[in-house]
Amino acid sequence: MEKIIAIQGVQGSFHHLVAQQYYGREIPVLECMSFSELTKSLMENKAAEGVMAIENSIAGSILPNYALIDENKLKVVGEHYIPIDMNLMAVPGQNISEIKKVYSHPMALLQCKEFFKKHPHIKLIEDADTAEVARRIAEKGSTKVAAVASKAAAHLFDLEILAESIHTKKSNATRFLIISKQKKEPNGEKIDKASLKFELESKRGSLVSVLNILRDFNLDMSKIQSMPIIEFPWKYSFFIDVTFDDYTEFEKAMKILEVMTERLTILGTYKNSL
Amino acid sequence: MEKIIAIQGVQGSFHHLVAQQYYGREIPVLECMSFSELTKSLMENKAAEGVMAIENSIAGSILPNYALIDENKLKVVGEHYIPIDMNLMAVPGQNISEIKKVYSHPMALLQCKEFFKKHPHIKLIEDADTAEVARRIAEKGSTKVAAVASKAAAHLFDLEILAESIHTKKSNATRFLIISKQKKEPNGEKIDKASLKFELESKRGSLVSVLNILRDFNLDMSKIQSMPIIEFPWKYSFFIDVTFDDYTEFEKAMKILEVMTERLTILGTYKNSL
Repeated sequence: MEKIIAIQGVQGSFHHLVAQQYYGREIPVLECMSFSELTKSLMENKAAEGVMAIENSIAGSILPNYALIDENKLKVVGEHYIPIDMNLMAVPGQNISEIKKVYSHPMALLQCKEFFKKHPHIKLIEDADTAEVARRIAEKGSTKVAAVASKAAAHLFDLEILAESIHTKKSNATRFLIISKQKKEPNGEKIDKASLKFELESKRGSLVSVLNILRDFNLDMSKIQSMPIIEFPWKYSFFIDVTFDDYTEFEKAMKILEVMTERLTILGTYKNSL
Repeated sequence: MEKIIAIQGVQGSFHHLVAQQYYGREIPVLECMSFSELTKSLMENKAAEGVMAIENSIAGSILPNYALIDENKLKVVGEHYIPIDMNLMAVPGQNISEIKKVYSHPMALLQCKEFFKKHPHIKLIEDADTAEVARRIAEKGSTKVAAVASKAAAHLFDLEILAESIHTKKSNATRFLIISKQKKEPNGEKIDKASLKFELESKRGSLVSVLNILRDFNLDMSKIQSMPIIEFPWKYSFFIDVTFDDYTEFEKAMKILEVMTERLTILGTYKNSL
């Protein structure tokens, strides 16, 4: 049986685009309307792996997604970056001045904030998925409403693009994680990146000591984020991504971190795609 | 003239609660329906200071709000933490089984995810503000719909609480910043916390060197977050909060960081309220 990949949203969504680029154009996908549905489909073996947005340069990390990975003991087995390209689309034959409402994902609306400032007559309404709105508009033939979605979605659902590339930051990439129930072991394929989570007491310098270890073992840090643990005001949890050339050096550093930190979790090891 | 404080949302919102706790119960507020409207009201001198949610233990930082502060050259002059208490409320005399739709802020719905899993007959709809929904339901006398908001909102708009404290994490605090056009100078009042932003090249160890300086000058780090700068893949920007006992030590460390980092911005210095 060919493996099925869980995506957030429907065909034509950015998650679908990532699945096609990562696995190949014809990869069968399972459409999930929320991230928790996506992780559930992996836990129930309805899909072999999943594609999950994790951060972009406007909103930062989608921390609830880290929680979903962590709580379900899922593993990160890969990553993929795509430049986000947002487009305004509607049933053909309309002008932008006729559009009264635009439905899209909150993140997409946020990314196009400057464009919509110039069109104050348009009411913005948050929705679950960019491509799903495009499909709905196409199926119902709704006029006076538009979707913000990918060019692929416009093509797929025969909508007309009223305004192209309307996102504010023209170099806005979004990072997606590939997640699975099984962790990835180094077997021939290059593994040179890892995502970690651990807790530390906020003793002066405790984080510096950890970062010194990473440096000693030639691990580069490509991401760091602290999260206060509200129940214990003197403790923090950290999400850190590291890249490395030598997997055995990484393993040594982790052995030391296991002693230096609390609740060290290796969320996954995988191939750096940046 | 008494000073007016800009809040996100309407009276009865969590922002209003913070304003009352920080400035006193009778503080006049300017209701803003978005964070960008809030910063605009400060730029146009319609309000003296503003209250802005910045992070919580579920979703992490609201990074677009940092961008709003930074782009408008606003200053952080204070902070305030409140435990979030979410409640389901509706026009009196209804049972929870009769409720078909719940409108609230996406963050509030996220915080109550587990509760709504147990009530799958309720459709969740995202809205701009928790308290504004409560007010709308009360004004229209709408039945079969409910709001998720604070007890204060239920009280203010005479709604009945159908389910109390429905948020998942029972110790979920949200951090709010107090922002202003003018920065806070140390004048008698204790200033022992600062929010910084700077950029670094991702040379191995460059962040470690910065953190070593912070430690050398007895600055404790209470928050760190990296953001990739997509235009320059080898560069990162960092948001760091530090606490300290001695303001002159803080000033010395900043002089060194000005040389060691790029685009160092002190977003504000203020009193630590944790």
